[in-house]
Order: sequence, then C-alpha cells, then structure tokens
Amino acid sequence: MPNAVALRQPLLAPRSVALIGQSNDAGKTAGRPLNYLRRAGFAGKIYCVNARRDTVLGERAYPSVAALPEAPDHAYILVPTEAVIAAVAECGRAGVKIATILAAGFSETGAEGMAREQRLCAIAAETGIRIVGPSSLGVVNLRNGLLLTANAAFAEPDIPVGRTFFASHSGTMIGALMSRGKARGVGFAGLVSIGNEVDLSIGEICSATLDEPDIDGYLLFLESIRNSAALRDFALGAAARGKPIVAYKLGRSAAARELAVTHTGALAGEDDVASAFLADCGIARVESLEALIEALPLVRRTPIRPVGARPPQVALLTTTAGGATMVVDPLAMRGVEIAQPSVDTFARFSTKGIVATPARIVDLTIAGTRYEVMKAALDILTTAPEFDLVVAVVGSSARFHPQQAVQPIIDSANAAKPIAAFLVPEAPEALARLSEAGVPAFRTPEACADAITAALARRQPKPAVAVPQGDGGRVLDELGAYALLDRLGIPRAPAVALDTTITQAPALPFDYPVAVKVLSAHIAHKTEAGGVALNVSNGDALVAVIKTMRETVKARTGITPDRVLVAPMISGIGEALIGYRIDREVGPLVMVAAGGVFTEIYRDRSLRLAPVDLPTAHAMISEVKAFAMLKGFRGKPAGNLDALAKAIVALSRLALQNDPAIAEAEVNPLIVRADGVVAVDALVRTM
Amino acid sequence: MPNAVALRQPLLAPRSVALIGQSNDAGKTAGRPLNYLRRAGFAGKIYCVNARRDTVLGERAYPSVAALPEAPDHAYILVPTEAVIAAVAECGRAGVKIATILAAGFSETGAEGMAREQRLCAIAAETGIRIVGPSSLGVVNLRNGLLLTANAAFAEPDIPVGRTFFASHSGTMIGALMSRGKARGVGFAGLVSIGNEVDLSIGEICSATLDEPDIDGYLLFLESIRNSAALRDFALGAAARGKPIVAYKLGRSAAARELAVTHTGALAGEDDVASAFLADCGIARVESLEALIEALPLVRRTPIRPVGARPPQVALLTTTAGGATMVVDPLAMRGVEIAQPSVDTFARFSTKGIVATPARIVDLTIAGTRYEVMKAALDILTTAPEFDLVVAVVGSSARFHPQQAVQPIIDSANAAKPIAAFLVPEAPEALARLSEAGVPAFRTPEACADAITAALARRQPKPAVAVPQGDGGRVLDELGAYALLDRLGIPRAPAVALDTTITQAPALPFDYPVAVKVLSAHIAHKTEAGGVALNVSNGDALVAVIKTMRETVKARTGITPDRVLVAPMISGIGEALIGYRIDREVGPLVMVAAGGVFTEIYRDRSLRLAPVDLPTAHAMISEVKAFAMLKGFRGKPAGNLDALAKAIVALSRLALQNDPAIAEAEVNPLIVRADGVVAVDALVRTM
Repeated sequence: MPNAVALRQPLLAPRSVALIGQSNDAGKTAGRPLNYLRRAGFAGKIYCVNARRDTVLGERAYPSVAALPEAPDHAYILVPTEAVIAAVAECGRAGVKIATILAAGFSETGAEGMAREQRLCAIAAETGIRIVGPSSLGVVNLRNGLLLTANAAFAEPDIPVGRTFFASHSGTMIGALMSRGKARGVGFAGLVSIGNEVDLSIGEICSATLDEPDIDGYLLFLESIRNSAALRDFALGAAARGKPIVAYKLGRSAAARELAVTHTGALAGEDDVASAFLADCGIARVESLEALIEALPLVRRTPIRPVGARPPQVALLTTTAGGATMVVDPLAMRGVEIAQPSVDTFARFSTKGIVATPARIVDLTIAGTRYEVMKAALDILTTAPEFDLVVAVVGSSARFHPQQAVQPIIDSANAAKPIAAFLVPEAPEALARLSEAGVPAFRTPEACADAITAALARRQPKPAVAVPQGDGGRVLDELGAYALLDRLGIPRAPAVALDTTITQAPALPFDYPVAVKVLSAHIAHKTEAGGVALNVSNGDALVAVIKTMRETVKARTGITPDRVLVAPMISGIGEALIGYRIDREVGPLVMVAAGGVFTEIYRDRSLRLAPVDLPTAHAMISEVKAFAMLKGFRGKPAGNLDALAKAIVALSRLALQNDPAIAEAEVNPLIVRADGVVAVDALVRTM
Repeated sequence: MPNAVALRQPLLAPRSVALIGQSNDAGKTAGRPLNYLRRAGFAGKIYCVNARRDTVLGERAYPSVAALPEAPDHAYILVPTEAVIAAVAECGRAGVKIATILAAGFSETGAEGMAREQRLCAIAAETGIRIVGPSSLGVVNLRNGLLLTANAAFAEPDIPVGRTFFASHSGTMIGALMSRGKARGVGFAGLVSIGNEVDLSIGEICSATLDEPDIDGYLLFLESIRNSAALRDFALGAAARGKPIVAYKLGRSAAARELAVTHTGALAGEDDVASAFLADCGIARVESLEALIEALPLVRRTPIRPVGARPPQVALLTTTAGGATMVVDPLAMRGVEIAQPSVDTFARFSTKGIVATPARIVDLTIAGTRYEVMKAALDILTTAPEFDLVVAVVGSSARFHPQQAVQPIIDSANAAKPIAAFLVPEAPEALARLSEAGVPAFRTPEACADAITAALARRQPKPAVAVPQGDGGRVLDELGAYALLDRLGIPRAPAVALDTTITQAPALPFDYPVAVKVLSAHIAHKTEAGGVALNVSNGDALVAVIKTMRETVKARTGITPDRVLVAPMISGIGEALIGYRIDREVGPLVMVAAGGVFTEIYRDRSLRLAPVDLPTAHAMISEVKAFAMLKGFRGKPAGNLDALAKAIVALSRLALQNDPAIAEAEVNPLIVRADGVVAVDALVRTM
C-alpha cells in the first residue's frame, strides 16, 4: 500500500500544520486547536491563518496560505461553510497535502450542499490535495501531540495513550470514547473524526496506520457503510497483520438509518446487509457503546472459528451464581450457549480438591475467592476441550481486594482459551488492573455478553472479488432465466413454451395437472397481470386457459403475450427463496430465506457477500428460523438441505461471472423436497 | 394490611436481634454481621449465640437462644445447613418473630433439601415464626443501622442512604446494587436478600414497607415469579400510594430459566407470561442492570398512558446529533418512535430566536450549550402536545462544565412532561447532580432507551380476580366447547352431530362441501387419529367418509367413536388463535396469536392477565406481528379486527366464571373474515 504509507505522514505525523481560520477566542470551536496542539507539545510547525488579524491567541497570524513561509503538510480548515471551498482551493494550489474540514453544510443539506461537495472533489482531483471531512472534528495522534481537533473533550488533562486507533463518522464520539475510555482504563493511539468521507474514507485512513507498530487494534463508529471497497481492503490488511477490528454501527432501526441520511448525507442500506458485510470483512460488530470500549481485548484473544464448526460453548466460572446468571441470560438471547463441563472436566476439579457441583455454572462459592482455587479452576476450564471461551464472574472481592480477586485471571491471561471477566460489584480498580494486563474485562453483564457474542461470531475475512460489469440491465424472460439456472446447475422444473394462439394442446413431456405462466420479460408481476394459472388438468383446459390468459394480460397490461410457459405442478415439504444481487454499497450478495410472509414480516433471512462455499451455505440455512419447517417439523419428513445449500453456492457464483454479468437473480420459490430442490420461478436481471 | 405493619417492625426495625452462629472470625461469612451492625451503630440489642464459645469478636456469646435474657425480635441464622432446622425450631419455641436463614441447601438441592424446606414450613406454622430465606444474605435497613447481612459488600464505608427499597432473589445483588448505586449517586433506604421464599415472599416483605414515608420507590431483582398473589397485592398497594416499582427479571432465555431452577428451586414459567404479569401489575420491567439502577426517577415522572392511546412519541433535543442517534437506535429497536416536532413547535423555536432545522432530532448545535437556549428549548418541547417524553442529550460540556451543562435540565425537573438526560461523555459529576435533583439521567444510551421503553410501556395495575375453582378437570367434546363459545358470545361455525353408524346422509342446515371431525372428548389429536376430513362434497361421500373415519380412529386409538361433527367449510382472510388458561404462577391469562408455525417458530403472541377490556384486546392484536396479514396485506381485504378483539374479551371473561370453572380454553383456528370471526375448532378443559 504505497498510497497508504504516503498518506500516513501528512495525515498523522505532519511536519507542519496550518490552522485556517484559527480564532482569537479560545472558547470558540475554531479557537481550540492552537491551544490543544501547544499544550500537547506538538513538535511540528504550527501556522495560524486568519485574514482579519495579525495575531491569534498571542501567536502570529498569516493573512493567507500563500503568505506562509512553506506549504504545510496538513491544514485544518476552521472557516465557516461558505468560505471552505476557497480555503481548500488555496491549500490545493499551495501544495498542502491534507485538508481536514470542520464545517458542516455539504451533501447532508440538499442540492446547494451537494454542489459544494462536488466542488471539493474537483479541487482534490485537480490539485492532488486529500480531504478529511467535511464535518470533521479533526485528527488526533496522541503519540506526537497532534491534537488537530476542535472537539471540546480534548481540553481533558492527562489523556491516556494506548495502542488502539479509533475512527468515527461522528465527531462527538472521538471525545466521548476518549473520556469514557479514560474512566475505564482504555487509552488510544489516535482518533479521527471522518465526517462525510467526500474523499478520504474510513478504510483509507485506517489503512494508512496499518504498519504502525504502536497500533494493535481498531475501533470504528459507523453511521453507514460507505466506500466499502476501501473498508474491505483495510479489514483484509488488518487481518493479515493480526490486528482486530471492532465496530459499532448505528442504524439497526429504520429510524436511525433515516437519521444517518439527514446527518451525513450517506445513503443507508439495510442493516442486515451491513452486518453481513462487516462479518465477511472479519470485523466484529458490537451493539452497545460499552462493548465498543471494552470488546477489543477479547476479540484479539478469541480465534476465528472455522465455518461449520459446532456451535460455540462457553464455560461460566464464578464465586457468585446470582451474579453469573446475569451474563447467561443476554448470552443465551444472542444464541451463545453456556455449557456444563464434561464429566472428565468435573473429575479434574475433584482431583485438585475443588468442590463444584456438576451444573452449567461452575460455582466455587466463597472458596473461589482463594487464589489457588480460582487459578486451578481456570487452568482446568481453559484446557477443557469442550470450551471455546471461559467467563469468570467475580463477586464482592473484586471491590474489596481487587489485587487478589483478579490476580488468578491476570495470571491466566495467556491461557489456551480466552477468558472474559465480569465484575459484579462496582470495581474500577480491579477493572483497571485487568485492562492494564490486557485481560478482557467488563463492567456490565450486557457488554460482556455483547463482546463475547461478537468475538465468537467473527469470521475469516473474504478476499474481494472483481465486481461483474455489464452494459445496461435487462430482465430475462423465464426461459432465459431457466437457461441461466441450467448453466449454474440449479435444478428447475421442466418447462415447455407454447404460442398463445394454439388451438390444440401438444403432447407434453410431463403429466397433467400443469401450471401455466405468461412468458415475457416485460411483465414483472405475472399474478397481478392475470398471467398465472395453476392445476390445469388436461389439454382442453390448457388451450382454454391460454386463450383467456392472452386476453386478460392484454387487457391488464396492454402487452399481448406471444408465449406461455407450461410446467408440471410440483409440491414439496416447503419452499425457500434464494437471491443474488450486486448491492450498491457492499457488492455481490447472496441471500436465503423462507420466502413469503415469513421473510416480509419477520425479516427472517441470511445474507453473505458472494460467492460462498458449501459450509457457509449450510451456516446460512441454519440462521433462517423458518427452516425449522424443513427439519422434520410436526412429523413431516425433512427437506434436502444439502441440495438447498448447493443451490445457494451455485447462485452465489454469479459474482464470478461476466458473460452475462448479472445484477440480480431470484429463485422464488425454490421447492424443497426430500430428494432435492426444484426452482419453479426465477427472475434475472443482467447488468 | 395489618399483617404487613406487624411484620415491618421485627423485620426492619427490630428492638433486638440475635446472631445465631456468629463466628469469632470476622473474615468468615458468618463472622460479618456483628461488625457490620456495630459499625453502623444499630441501636437495638444484639445477642450473639455460639454454643462453642463464651465470646465472639470480644462480645459475650450465649450458648443457646433459650439462654438469652429475652426473645429477640429477629434472628439471623448463620449456622450450616444441617443445623438450620434445630436453630429455627429453637427460635420459634422462644418466641422469636423473624428468622432470616443464610444457609443454602434446601429445595434447590433435590429431595433431601425439599424435606428440610417442608420442615421449616411446619415450624413456621406451629410456632408463628416468619422466615426470610433460606439462602438469604440478609436484611438491611440503612436508616437505623440494621446491617443484618453477611454480604461482603457491606464492609463498604459511607454507604449512601436514599429513598429506594431493593428486594432481590439473589443475595449477591444487594451488594452489587449498593456499590454500583453509590458510584452512580443512587442510595437505598433498605435492601433485602429474599432467597428461596419458603415463607416470606418478595411481595409480603415489600408490602411491609409501603407506608414508610422514607421510601418512595422499589427495585426488584427477580429470578422467577413466585407467590404472585402477594407480589400483585404489593404492586397494587404501591400504585395506590404512587410509589413506582422497577423490576429486572432473569430468564428471558430458556437457559437462564433453567438456571433459576437449579439455583433457587423455583419453577420457571415462560418469560412472556412473566412480562405480562409484571406489566399488568403496573411494574416497569427493564432488561439491563444499568437501567435497573437508573430507571426509577424516569418511571416515577412518567404518567401511565391509557390503553388505546396513540403510540408514544419522544422528542430528542441535543447539542450533538452524533451522540443523540445512539439513543434513537435502541429506542426504535424497541418500538418507541422519536418524532419530529410539529410545525407549530418549530415556529415557537423561531419566536424564541432558537435556530433548529426541522428534523427528527432537534439539534441546537453549540448554541445549546448556553443556558437560556437549552432551557427555552426544553420549555417548548415539554409543553408541545405531540410529545410524551423529552430526551436531552448533552455533549462534552457535561464533562467540563457539569453545573452549567445540566442546570437547564435540573431547572426543568418539574416540567409538564418527563425529561430523560443522556450524557455522551464520561461525566460522573453531571450525572450525580442530576440524580441528586431527582432528574432521570443515564450513563449509556442503551440504559436510557431501556428505561424510556419501560416507563412508556407501563400499564395501570389490574385488580386481582378470585381464581375460579373447580372440582377436577375434564375435556369437553367439541359440541360442549361450542356451547361454551355460544354462552360467551364467540361466533362459531354451525355444526351438526351425526352418529357414525348412519347409512344415509340427513339434510344439513348448510351447503356442501363440509368438514367432518370425530366428536369425542377422549381424542385430543384428531388429525393424527384420522378423525378429520375436509371438503366432503356430497351426501354419499359424507356417509363414506364417516364410515372410514369410524374404522380408522378405532384402529389408531382403540376408541370407537360414536359421533362426528359436520360443519361447513369456512375460509377467510386469515386465522387467529385465542387462548385462555389459569397459569400455575400468575393466574388467569388470555392469549392471542396467529396460530400455526408463526406462533411456534417466532413466539409471536400477546398475553395479558384475564379478563381484558376491548381497548386492551386491540392493543394485544397490535402486538402480534403476523397480524400484518390481516391488515390489507398484499392487496387482500382487511380482516375484521374489531370482531377479533371482541372474541378475545369474551374468552378472557372465563376468568370471572365458576360454573363451570374453566382451566383452559383454546379456539384454533378462529377464522378472521372481512365481516367477522368464526371459530371452527375449540378445545376446553374444566377445572
């Protein structure tokens, strides 16, 4: 990544910075950066530019960027919205490498703002200047005093320095995470407020830091998924270096997605698409603010589990069963099982003289407050083959004897399995000790469960595929769609095309009753058009049905259909919907659902970036609740889920095909039978 | 409540306490209470009983309760499990009023423990002694120094005293809430570890405190719903006195419910039954530990909304949109809408010179950090008719200028609508100021959303009904069930009973095709027994079907059916399932669901304590997602939801009937048509 390396220096280690529009009033937003930089001892040159004053806050002010003795590496543009374009243009002309823009009022504010944003992009293209923002509260590198920020929170004294890098769409959050991290014993290496991403994206900015030896993990606060290719590149680079990424993404609700649009001008896709994207990038997604701050050490310690592995099992070790159950509940709600140790494992407890009643929660009671008992129990559970992760829940002793209470956990930091500690009382000192030692530790049972779920759900990042390209989409008719299914190897119903003018039924290669569907690429909603007839029982009825259909469709749509498709009636144990599309935000996607009202009402579907392999397809099937109906429900036989999985894999491979390139393909329904699957309808649109 | 008053004094204000088994080792669990009581300055007499020593921790020890100079009001039994029965029996004989038992090892440990528990109950019945526990970490009254507890957390110095009473099944949690509350500026009046509830229940203990002027709200930590009648009495008493109750209940997951059984020996019902019970008792249920600590002030300030009111609308006022969206997301996920202020409301902002772009989030930006701007905006939103509640999200200023930042909120504490404050940065001082002023304030966006949802969802507590009594259940046959529906006024299909030996079909009072079902109270699963035939098209077919059915049912079940029920085939827009039952834990319940796989796979149902009124029935219908299919789905006509609601009301009124008393009644399916509803199958069991 030569670009990334070139970007890093002016972005995060500039030799000189300019504060364009630095105010003389330290209390104003535009007055903050100079004092922050001075107080933090930033060693580079600092130039203030203010056309209306000779000095600001006691320092020399230059009238313009052109008047500066050198072109600074990085300019922070603090001027009002209307003056931003001119300031950035001046920086570009002068050879400034990075401009970070504070002002809002761009694409999020409608046509006028959108025009401003396009102007910014043009300046970047013309002059080579790179832009952070607009709406950026700034760029902070705590290792060199680069507090190039207007966020009020950075007036904080004694900001702790750590090894985590934080990038956020929201500028407020860089301050909030810094102050909340400080209280929780978590420090940062750097924090960047990304803003609207008109030029530099979260992915590019984070990629620029990947080879920093002082950074060993990333937190992201996302309002939407934008510039997904760069984000995926960054995620792959981070995975290659063993640097974990934890993300909190707003917009689980439709209401919040709508707000993301008004707030930053981003388009907001569906949340489960974003989830699938983040997961397939190997990014752990958490659902709460506390987990964003606390989850990284656990994600770092938890190996990615292979697709198709048995469901994860978590051991729960405690001195206080009442407190421990608070972790079980939110874990189980998220589908993670607290498992009872095996008979062998309990036998090892006995050997060590540890009293623990066989149960799901290993409750050492008060004996567990003794170092050697807790340490021995941790040793046994972290080496028991049945567990992927051990939760240690510590009671009152965490508050009164923080050192002793958590020392066995600290001394197990490098155990074979990750350990997550939850402290039942308020116990800031014990939490700080654990954090200092790099041990995953949690202040609330909910954040603990959130982080554990995210850590165990992490997947290997998938390499990006070249997105298929086409020359303008068209919808295939159903025969064309069937031909595509044939090429992909997805079984479909036999079908015969007949002219709508026939007066006698030909011999069919299958038995009656049959289904009749109008065959036209121009009629999207066949049922509404009167273009579907089912259970047609003989040749005479077939001719009559076709004649009526020709007339009804013509009357309803204005299109006279030339042909119909005739196929046998096929029934099965149940139905599935499988779909493929190139998503505007995240690229090729494959989806499976039960179809019908289940999918619409309950949003019960599973998504992955395409293509997928067979174990992944099986994992997808297991995520759809409605497929309980295909697993021997109420005495019915089971459907062939292998065949369903193979069909998902086949459809997902459209992501690798360019002839023709497919924008969208949906098989609905795919009939699931005991002996296989059969597509009985398909809709395909080329690119 | 004369009993409650009589209980209060020995339980929470004893003139004398005995510590039975007080240890001489202050580090041991049984060594703690004496020091706690002394340090807290408990003014009553304290008697230590220890058969093996003359002194404990420097104080006189008596050899037995009988040797004490008086019968103490309240004894804390600290002896091991095996010695508990004898100790309680001795207390009972001596006239001790309350025995609180520390030891575990009762009903949660199987047959032997169960026998011990029965012995305890017998002693209570014989001697009149009342029992707290077993597994009780004790009883704490912070207003009089009664630290009658073995919980290690109460070694805490400077325990803050407040006006909230906390009762918990888990003993650990009394310490955890005390320490976490202290850090969050929340103090308690008293805390009780309830344990196994063999005698005194949460409801009885809390009821004993209802008339304490120093207690103005309750927190409950529940592992299950036990002794629901007493809990409901307490809830009604609290509501009558305007004292709100907030509960956290474990067991949202099946895994945690199972643990509750092993932990305390309680039976654990389904979680949505518990939710319905708590809600119909007017208890606000939160889902997170932090919300349990923080929610009470908001619940207190939020009026109960009438059933059938429009969905609640929440205003969101902020100086930092990025932070505010973190509250929108979890609120919207729980179905609470952040609404955009009306045109009128925005006009009032303009009048006051407040700049706020019309949007869902009222973002004052940095101007909102000025007192008069924030105060004026709060005044406008708390008097705007469209809102039920206002959320104020405060940015960095909450950390740096805690007093100024939250003063406008404190000064709005008595506004016409409740205000919930969420502080984006770590801002303990601002939180403490708000809490001190009684203003609802939240440390995390998730707890804020949790508490708001719980406060807005609160319902008027329903008075208890006498549970119908019967003399031993039997299942009615379908004609009997139909007769019951007729009495309740629930429309059902016309039906004719025919002998299974007929050789010619009689004239039917309805048209063919018809449905035929075996008519027998002894065949529960008619379909599996071969006892259902649909779409029978004429009289000859009917005779043939009945003959076959008689033989098949006999072959499959061994029962020769004498009669079948014949009814017309009835179709509709969709189906519902309505059910009534007397739940073992919570009493009469009414349920509505879509029936079939929707109910089984997605647990998509709504429950209330029975009986319900019409607005409540409508609210129940609105909670079932699958009923989207009855509201004009995909171009279909809408079903008659009024008729469905009336049927729910009618079925729920079984709770008021005793002749016969009904244990369980289920109509499945109830066909929902545009012109009404029709029951086509019903199962009824008497008590």
